Amino acid sequence: MSPILAILVVAFFLYCVTTSASDPDPIQDFCIPNPKFGSIKTAHLGSLPCKNSSEATTDDFVFSGMKGAGNFCDTGLAVISVNPALFPGINTLGMSFVRADLKVGGYNPPHFHPRATEIAYVVQGSVYAGFVDSTNRVFARVIEQGEVIVFPRGLLHFLMNVGDKPATIFGSFNSQNPGLQKIPTAIFGSGIHEELLEKAFGLSPKQIRVMRRRFNPKSKG
Amino acid sequence: MSPILAILVVAFFLYCVTTSASDPDPIQDFCIPNPKFGSIKTAHLGSLPCKNSSEATTDDFVFSGMKGAGNFCDTGLAVISVNPALFPGINTLGMSFVRADLKVGGYNPPHFHPRATEIAYVVQGSVYAGFVDSTNRVFARVIEQGEVIVFPRGLLHFLMNVGDKPATIFGSFNSQNPGLQKIPTAIFGSGIHEELLEKAFGLSPKQIRVMRRRFNPKSKG
Amino acid sequence: MSPILAILVVAFFLYCVTTSASDPDPIQDFCIPNPKFGSIKTAHLGSLPCKNSSEATTDDFVFSGMKGAGNFCDTGLAVISVNPALFPGINTLGMSFVRADLKVGGYNPPHFHPRATEIAYVVQGSVYAGFVDSTNRVFARVIEQGEVIVFPRGLLHFLMNVGDKPATIFGSFNSQNPGLQKIPTAIFGSGIHEELLEKAFGLSPKQIRVMRRRFNPKSKG
Amino acid sequence: MSPILAILVVAFFLYCVTTSASDPDPIQDFCIPNPKFGSIKTAHLGSLPCKNSSEATTDDFVFSGMKGAGNFCDTGLAVISVNPALFPGINTLGMSFVRADLKVGGYNPPHFHPRATEIAYVVQGSVYAGFVDSTNRVFARVIEQGEVIVFPRGLLHFLMNVGDKPATIFGSFNSQNPGLQKIPTAIFGSGIHEELLEKAFGLSPKQIRVMRRRFNPKSKG
Amino acid sequence: MSPILAILVVAFFLYCVTTSASDPDPIQDFCIPNPKFGSIKTAHLGSLPCKNSSEATTDDFVFSGMKGAGNFCDTGLAVISVNPALFPGINTLGMSFVRADLKVGGYNPPHFHPRATEIAYVVQGSVYAGFVDSTNRVFARVIEQGEVIVFPRGLLHFLMNVGDKPATIFGSFNSQNPGLQKIPTAIFGSGIHEELLEKAFGLSPKQIRVMRRRFNPKSKG
Amino acid sequence: MSPILAILVVAFFLYCVTTSASDPDPIQDFCIPNPKFGSIKTAHLGSLPCKNSSEATTDDFVFSGMKGAGNFCDTGLAVISVNPALFPGINTLGMSFVRADLKVGGYNPPHFHPRATEIAYVVQGSVYAGFVDSTNRVFARVIEQGEVIVFPRGLLHFLMNVGDKPATIFGSFNSQNPGLQKIPTAIFGSGIHEELLEKAFGLSPKQIRVMRRRFNPKSKG
Repeated sequence: MSPILAILVVAFFLYCVTTSASDPDPIQDFCIPNPKFGSIKTAHLGSLPCKNSSEATTDDFVFSGMKGAGNFCDTGLAVISVNPALFPGINTLGMSFVRADLKVGGYNPPHFHPRATEIAYVVQGSVYAGFVDSTNRVFARVIEQGEVIVFPRGLLHFLMNVGDKPATIFGSFNSQNPGLQKIPTAIFGSGIHEELLEKAFGLSPKQIRVMRRRFNPKSKG
Repeated sequence: MSPILAILVVAFFLYCVTTSASDPDPIQDFCIPNPKFGSIKTAHLGSLPCKNSSEATTDDFVFSGMKGAGNFCDTGLAVISVNPALFPGINTLGMSFVRADLKVGGYNPPHFHPRATEIAYVVQGSVYAGFVDSTNRVFARVIEQGEVIVFPRGLLHFLMNVGDKPATIFGSFNSQNPGLQKIPTAIFGSGIHEELLEKAFGLSPKQIRVMRRRFNPKSKG
Repeated sequence: MSPILAILVVAFFLYCVTTSASDPDPIQDFCIPNPKFGSIKTAHLGSLPCKNSSEATTDDFVFSGMKGAGNFCDTGLAVISVNPALFPGINTLGMSFVRADLKVGGYNPPHFHPRATEIAYVVQGSVYAGFVDSTNRVFARVIEQGEVIVFPRGLLHFLMNVGDKPATIFGSFNSQNPGLQKIPTAIFGSGIHEELLEKAFGLSPKQIRVMRRRFNPKSKG
Repeated sequence: MSPILAILVVAFFLYCVTTSASDPDPIQDFCIPNPKFGSIKTAHLGSLPCKNSSEATTDDFVFSGMKGAGNFCDTGLAVISVNPALFPGINTLGMSFVRADLKVGGYNPPHFHPRATEIAYVVQGSVYAGFVDSTNRVFARVIEQGEVIVFPRGLLHFLMNVGDKPATIFGSFNSQNPGLQKIPTAIFGSGIHEELLEKAFGLSPKQIRVMRRRFNPKSKG
Repeated sequence: MSPILAILVVAFFLYCVTTSASDPDPIQDFCIPNPKFGSIKTAHLGSLPCKNSSEATTDDFVFSGMKGAGNFCDTGLAVISVNPALFPGINTLGMSFVRADLKVGGYNPPHFHPRATEIAYVVQGSVYAGFVDSTNRVFARVIEQGEVIVFPRGLLHFLMNVGDKPATIFGSFNSQNPGLQKIPTAIFGSGIHEELLEKAFGLSPKQIRVMRRRFNPKSKG
Repeated sequence: MSPILAILVVAFFLYCVTTSASDPDPIQDFCIPNPKFGSIKTAHLGSLPCKNSSEATTDDFVFSGMKGAGNFCDTGLAVISVNPALFPGINTLGMSFVRADLKVGGYNPPHFHPRATEIAYVVQGSVYAGFVDSTNRVFARVIEQGEVIVFPRGLLHFLMNVGDKPATIFGSFNSQNPGLQKIPTAIFGSGIHEELLEKAFGLSPKQIRVMRRRFNPKSKG
């Protein structure tokens, strides 16, 4: 192994540690990961050691990659999720954000962010949106352009475009990496023991196999 | 409304505020809710203003209510969840705990705690236990008496007694009120719009009605 | 003083205390101030004790008051600042937000938020925006519709509409009450001793008087 | 670039990330307990609900009560401990402070603050000062006027005036109520079971009785 | 020094920095130190940079090393202290735990954890347990199998097996590295200046020498 | 019990709860940057990876570099700012400090620390000191030797020696790197667009040029 490669490997692993700190107040004005190490693929935050603050530029603090919608998946949803891996300037600052576009009838299934509250602002369109609290009550209704809904930290929430034109939502989080668990795939696409799923949801082995094939194409179900 | 009643009402509402602070370091040795106000039913933490620290007694800091299993529900699970509502001495100290007993074949369905990591210690028995991470990977296996598993903050996890005798787990949390969302009831027992559930899980209206009746008996589904 | 009035007064003062906690994780799903106490004028957050969570409604978590611009002041700026005083549902959840509209040529003078990072999303228009770091470097440029700029916690920043049509910005903060100090008014409109201002800015007594009259109309300067 | 240099560069940049520990936040500018309720004796913080911020005055933020030494106890130590009970203006701001005066030969026995780091500045005199870490190592030496020593959060520390004139120390804490446990009194003056103390310190029942009488005059020991 | 060695040395030192962050919310699901660097002896947490999350396995999150008691020392106490050095899976998750076994008559002398609250669950046996608060009051009593006692953050506490069979305690902490100071050894086995100890405890030089020999065998006292 | 008394009692008990704001934690006793890497110039904290804790010495925790005043600048102010770059022992411990000396008539212009509250103790002299709150009110007066003033987190504050002899202030912060923005230089010496400054302060282009030359000598203004 060449020394430079070794350094990059160490840098990568160390970054994993360094980013595993929490979301408290920063103790510097900012800390932009160093782009010199950009070729290293990084699992979570795609990120790297800080660059010297004197080398920071204005462009480090402006994100221009979500002027339009992202790529739509087959649920009619397109998400551009912006954390320090994509926008280094927010590293250590305790926030991140997302642009979500929904085709007519498109939806974002029940999901939650383990490490953040979300403020969702409707840029355009009309969406059915809501969350479930710890007592299994749903708080949901249709919200329109210019309205804002809050999804409290860690609680299940969902969106569905119920209007007759595309919808766009700008969401922001109070963590630089809020995390995400989408219920259908996390439950049926993850390999939890079949017996437990049958019991938990009252489904037959056959029904479970159908669900698994749907949410985990690699499953042999 | 009598003045004293009004005071109690105010005290109750205020407590709701006061307990809505976070789980950081305490700034007193301890803060035991005042039992004089014990008759007020409280929604979340069942709790009350502090009593004067000089009136605290040793018994305020010892919990004796989980020497045996709690009441079993029809999933073969009995849980005694111990937060400040049940054990006032831990108020403001940033921790809480739980005793879970599982009959043979009993299970705790996929669920998560929005506000805490959990350390689960197997007091007796043999349980299949695990969690799902943000990339939909399952980390699960059978753990035995004396072993400990960690469920990272906010991630989906589950338990099932796969041994041939009852199992007991002692779990502890790094929040005084970790919260809980059980997926089957939160999703199918909460009243999320039927259309969204159909789309999200690929189920027919009829299947959704079956699920809703199972997890929300009050539903007319 | 009647007992009920006394209770309300106590409730109000206590709320001031309770809101003075910090912005870490909540320990309940949410905590909505109680509207029953709505007639009390509150200095900072305009807010009140929690209502019972079972009385919360969906509307408590949706904010509809910023579909259009607020009232413009003479700098061509209209701000709707949304903290728990205006939108109770975000209380204890560690976030707040703002809508800022700028007429052509309008500006938001250099200011900072002592307790939060800000993520600013350009809903429409073209604005010159930036911040100053601890080494007195400016990071600023023109940002367009769909772009996002981050203002790190506590640092001076500013906005000016340099386009030929109105601009709208949606900003979000990682504190429920980020605070605000606008430099011109905080420095020249606040009553800091004239001699210190003269020395600090190298201005003559006459110039200081001019500045004071401009930023503090009540000043006799 | 040589490998070693590269390593050092990486180390430096990483350090920028890694030092991002936190410091928590108030959510108002300040919160001064209301003096109208001043007649209530308060056990811990001696304190009260906030007053309206518009009623705050400059004097609320200035503490004038430690221009001279406090009352000396028989160890030659005089302490004025300034937390929100004594100086309301610091309430919710995350700091408190202390003035300690030591007669020639006076001492502050081993003690610790459960909830804060301490920065101790020697205003005058010459003191032997130090702390013990988790591996039972002592870090101690004589420090002189103008020097500063840090006592890390929660660790045992001590002071003794070894000069030939009185000493004065100004200490500050990163908690508004750091707490205090003085070892001699906490151990021998608190009523821990005699048998445990005998075993723990290898002392005879008679010796334990002597210690208890010394540190807890009320003990019949 | 070879470059590779240098890299490892840097990696080790950097890890020390990275672990010195605080115990708030993680910003990843988990962060398991990388075992590839396992030969480096590490002072505190014995730990290393993160491994890529895709390489994590279920066994990383299960701790099997405390099915039985640890090694007993001459106070009749055996402790297995489980922090990230021993159980990497809990790294960054804000919790750690301990198994303590006590022979009949065995004890754990007065000690405290500078950085955590402890929840102690009696797995078997009968122990005298308690803590001392900031006003030198003891809260202590005998607790039995199935009972739980809480030791508030940073306060002195102690245990003694007063039953007629061995006792086992499972303790958990809300810090990944709570720290530990045992009073007898921290005070008498650490090298604090003899004169200060004599004064602080009212012991003769001869008595101090006896104590020092007992708690610090290397002392020539 | 009279209603008013009851209210006061409730208020008192509630206060005990409500003051539970936080203070964050290191997860090691300490972490001293490694001096072996001392030749690297570091922009912000001037600091380096931890050294092994067994290599720490007492001198690492004592700062001796501010027995006298620092170098005076032309405002009659001399500041020695002590963060981990200068005093490695405080790294990760959440505090830092400063010595400020003011010649007769010297001043520290309006400035703020984005990440900390400051406690300022007057070691000698007589200074006009104060801060501005979010409502543009000034809290300021002359404070004398032995008095302490608090500057709440992130708020603008200032000092001026109004006595007839030199003044010395010892300030401490609840962050290891509080940051600093001095208004005159941050506003007029930083390169904010001239048009925005003209509008924001109501100054003519010529006046702005004068200000810029004064606060940024490199400016061609």
